[in-house]
Amino acid sequence: MTTDIEIAQQAEIWPIQKVAEKVGLSEDDLEMYGPYKAKITLNEKQKKQELGKLILVTAISPTPAGEGKSTVTIGLADALNLTDHQTMVALREPSMGPVMGMKGGATGGGYSQVIPMADINLHFTGDFHALTIANNTLAALIDNSLQKGNPLQIDSRKIIWKRVLDVNDRALRHITIGLGGPTSGVPREDGFDITAASELMAILTLSTSLMDLKARIKRIVVAYDINNKPVTVDDLGVAGALTVMLKDAIKPNLVQSLGHTPTLIHGGPFANIAQGTNSLLATKTALRLADYVVTEAGFGSDLGGEKFLDVKVPLLGKTPDTIVIVATVRALKYNGGQSLDTLTQPNLEMLEAGLANLGQHLKAMQRYQTPVIVAINRFTDDTEAELDLIKNFVQNHQAQAVVADVWGQGGSGAIELAQTVAAATETESAFKPLYASEDTFEEKIEKLVTEIYGGVDYELSDQAQKQLQQFKQLGWDKMPIVMAKTQYSLSDNPKALGAPKNFKIHVCELVPKLGAGFIVALTGSILTMPGLPKLPAANRIDIDENGVITGLD
Amino acid sequence: MTTDIEIAQQAEIWPIQKVAEKVGLSEDDLEMYGPYKAKITLNEKQKKQELGKLILVTAISPTPAGEGKSTVTIGLADALNLTDHQTMVALREPSMGPVMGMKGGATGGGYSQVIPMADINLHFTGDFHALTIANNTLAALIDNSLQKGNPLQIDSRKIIWKRVLDVNDRALRHITIGLGGPTSGVPREDGFDITAASELMAILTLSTSLMDLKARIKRIVVAYDINNKPVTVDDLGVAGALTVMLKDAIKPNLVQSLGHTPTLIHGGPFANIAQGTNSLLATKTALRLADYVVTEAGFGSDLGGEKFLDVKVPLLGKTPDTIVIVATVRALKYNGGQSLDTLTQPNLEMLEAGLANLGQHLKAMQRYQTPVIVAINRFTDDTEAELDLIKNFVQNHQAQAVVADVWGQGGSGAIELAQTVAAATETESAFKPLYASEDTFEEKIEKLVTEIYGGVDYELSDQAQKQLQQFKQLGWDKMPIVMAKTQYSLSDNPKALGAPKNFKIHVCELVPKLGAGFIVALTGSILTMPGLPKLPAANRIDIDENGVITGLD
Repeated sequence: MTTDIEIAQQAEIWPIQKVAEKVGLSEDDLEMYGPYKAKITLNEKQKKQELGKLILVTAISPTPAGEGKSTVTIGLADALNLTDHQTMVALREPSMGPVMGMKGGATGGGYSQVIPMADINLHFTGDFHALTIANNTLAALIDNSLQKGNPLQIDSRKIIWKRVLDVNDRALRHITIGLGGPTSGVPREDGFDITAASELMAILTLSTSLMDLKARIKRIVVAYDINNKPVTVDDLGVAGALTVMLKDAIKPNLVQSLGHTPTLIHGGPFANIAQGTNSLLATKTALRLADYVVTEAGFGSDLGGEKFLDVKVPLLGKTPDTIVIVATVRALKYNGGQSLDTLTQPNLEMLEAGLANLGQHLKAMQRYQTPVIVAINRFTDDTEAELDLIKNFVQNHQAQAVVADVWGQGGSGAIELAQTVAAATETESAFKPLYASEDTFEEKIEKLVTEIYGGVDYELSDQAQKQLQQFKQLGWDKMPIVMAKTQYSLSDNPKALGAPKNFKIHVCELVPKLGAGFIVALTGSILTMPGLPKLPAANRIDIDENGVITGLD
Repeated sequence: MTTDIEIAQQAEIWPIQKVAEKVGLSEDDLEMYGPYKAKITLNEKQKKQELGKLILVTAISPTPAGEGKSTVTIGLADALNLTDHQTMVALREPSMGPVMGMKGGATGGGYSQVIPMADINLHFTGDFHALTIANNTLAALIDNSLQKGNPLQIDSRKIIWKRVLDVNDRALRHITIGLGGPTSGVPREDGFDITAASELMAILTLSTSLMDLKARIKRIVVAYDINNKPVTVDDLGVAGALTVMLKDAIKPNLVQSLGHTPTLIHGGPFANIAQGTNSLLATKTALRLADYVVTEAGFGSDLGGEKFLDVKVPLLGKTPDTIVIVATVRALKYNGGQSLDTLTQPNLEMLEAGLANLGQHLKAMQRYQTPVIVAINRFTDDTEAELDLIKNFVQNHQAQAVVADVWGQGGSGAIELAQTVAAATETESAFKPLYASEDTFEEKIEKLVTEIYGGVDYELSDQAQKQLQQFKQLGWDKMPIVMAKTQYSLSDNPKALGAPKNFKIHVCELVPKLGAGFIVALTGSILTMPGLPKLPAANRIDIDENGVITGLD
């Protein structure tokens, strides 16, 4: 079988200038990173009178392998271009930690990929690296302030700014630093997160301009002082230097799909502890350049989908014209109770049981009063009976399901999906947000639980209750909520598959992200630093004397 | 006064393709990083029959502020081009840690700078970032091997591979990792170095090809097992993945000086714990493209100079045609005993006393039987009497001293220096190495101490003696020695300025660098992770809404 990287390496790749021309960008709008990658300058002119149509791709609750959301996003966009709809894609950037760890590449699959695949999966244009060093320079500046007389009276036990690496490194989760005597810092407990979890990542992907980026960086709360008052980056006086470090990272990156669809890949925040979608500037740039923009939000509709709609849309100034929910036969069977190792075997009973999961995701997305379409991402073992069962179920829920074979056929495998989606974007619709910004924290979280997850209530731990009181005093309580919960269940219990009922969401801790502008509500322990598996992907990746890379998939 | 960054921002900058044309490079030889930076592909064709003339710029023992070695290197190259000698420069890349810490920019100064200055001082083309993540991925893989059953039987107390960041972060010098229970690693002592100190940096800058890079990475010793046997990257099976991560970092970076001299800036190893010069591939590429190549080696001739000649030259296959020693009036007065805060005041007595330092550096370089020229880097407070005193001293030592005002005048201030250097390169000379590779470790270190530093003997600590015995058993003892000692003295005592006599060098520890191919001999405690000062440069760096950066100098 041809591997993803072989398909990517054998593909015809266009010079990026030629890809850019498809959406009216000239060389002056581009900063080249080799012949096939470019950053788009922030001065690029709007080419059209109106913003393009916005298509959000989200998904049902996935199996641990993922359901091919990026693959469908890319295939759908290629299909839209094939059917004469001028289209761009906006995706997140892969993180190198997982690339070297479990999963290899993260740029679509089969004949629905973005290229140059290896570059995008590795350093790309350096955005993650810029975030890493900016994050860690801030950490060093905080510890240096402790070391040099502690003028801000920081309580060294209450520093909440962690260091980051774009590496899956479990041994750095819990560490002690500042050992080795008085010239080597102040001893304290600390830990590293993966770069994607840095608040700077969330900030970079929500900023509307370089100066908005700087203003947000100033607002970051890094610690509390001995009187429990928040200490910000502005107090440290280093927002300018951190912004300088991110001056290029804020510019969207242009690459192409195998079908030469202009593709912006920019920013990579998680969809549990952050908003989980590509950057606001990338999405906005795509909307200004193309008639149709297909974008993707991480994990299921309960995580990335909801966050796109309630955290990003208010800043974007544009609501989606159509929402696509990606479902697979195997994930539905998994949600119905079928074991992971038998998912390739047909089983209508398990599939039927699992459809409740799709039902809740459909309901959650339909409540925004935007057209919703289900894309069934076809796998080779799927039977017609299984596919028909899903289609009928969706039809009974006032929506339409379309099968697409994007992995095997690329854009040609998603023509019907593209036509259905394009038609849906013409529907008149009035976007109905989940909550208003002036709603209380309690009102917001209740709507999340009942209208999106299908649960009945929520519980705040003692710590979270105390924090909420503190946030109210500080005036932080009106920010949107970013719920950090498992992606495997609509509830906060990863074992409760399908569509659990009568459950409560248990919030154990709140994390204020003043720079990003949201409150993270943690349910249980969400890992912000992954580990490596027993046999990491790094052990099979290689390169030969001609520079040909193998094993990166 | 106009600051360095203002001069750089106001300068006329050429598209990098136009700079490349000056040495016969076409667009096909370049991978663009924006309009003013490019990597040179490794397939670039040799344009000339013969390699160019090689000019090595080194220095006397410096003041803590440095003596403008890079500035002289750039000014000399611009002057060579002004006098119709087709010239390239090869320099090291700045490290962001110091840029955000004490020193601001590190790209020359005044009218002898390389541009785009801010880009080069920040992420540049991502080489340091690639090294950081490759280094730290290796560290995570080592700890993961411990975590997952420890198949290589690594002694967790004998892991010598440290993590790195390109940040001045003293609090990470001594840490404990792997805390937090059995799912978060194996607890052990550890520490971070700055990226420039990574063995991968030394390896990248000594590799002759991508496959040589991989072979060197395989040889890196990362730990010892429970039987005290070395454990290598090859044993871990991840050399391929690490090489993939460095596939672009190995390519030299092309920029320009203010005089539009094509300038390769590539690699940034320290001159104490590593070889301290730009990459072998950059120097070699420049020699293949230009008639004259001016390159610089870190710290004084006793550190970077000697390492260039004894570690890099044997791999380069080209010996220098002229060696330039940079001296300043103020550093000579400092070496003569004048205090730092009075260095701008004329003082012939202190200057005369300090000339002994220049004498020893001259003697050390002259022993290689290559023409040596002293470049006096003029400062505004220098008097004619002071300059004449130096010139006479040098003449009495069978060499020539030329005054250059590169900071104030750029290449125009170094015309006489350029003519003198160009003439010297025509001298027939037979390079005489300090030692032969088959010399014993003891013979090599003795020659270093007596012929280069002007001392009488050396002492190995008990630990170093034990290590040497082990290295002899393992067959590691024939590699060149990289002496890690203070840059402030020819001896290992930073307070012994001038030209100390009758001293011994005290080696406390040996560090085998099998990938880089040398043995580091540590004298006293050499800091491999700097700290930040009380008021870091980061606190004065800023950027405005037009993207104009201030404070980066």
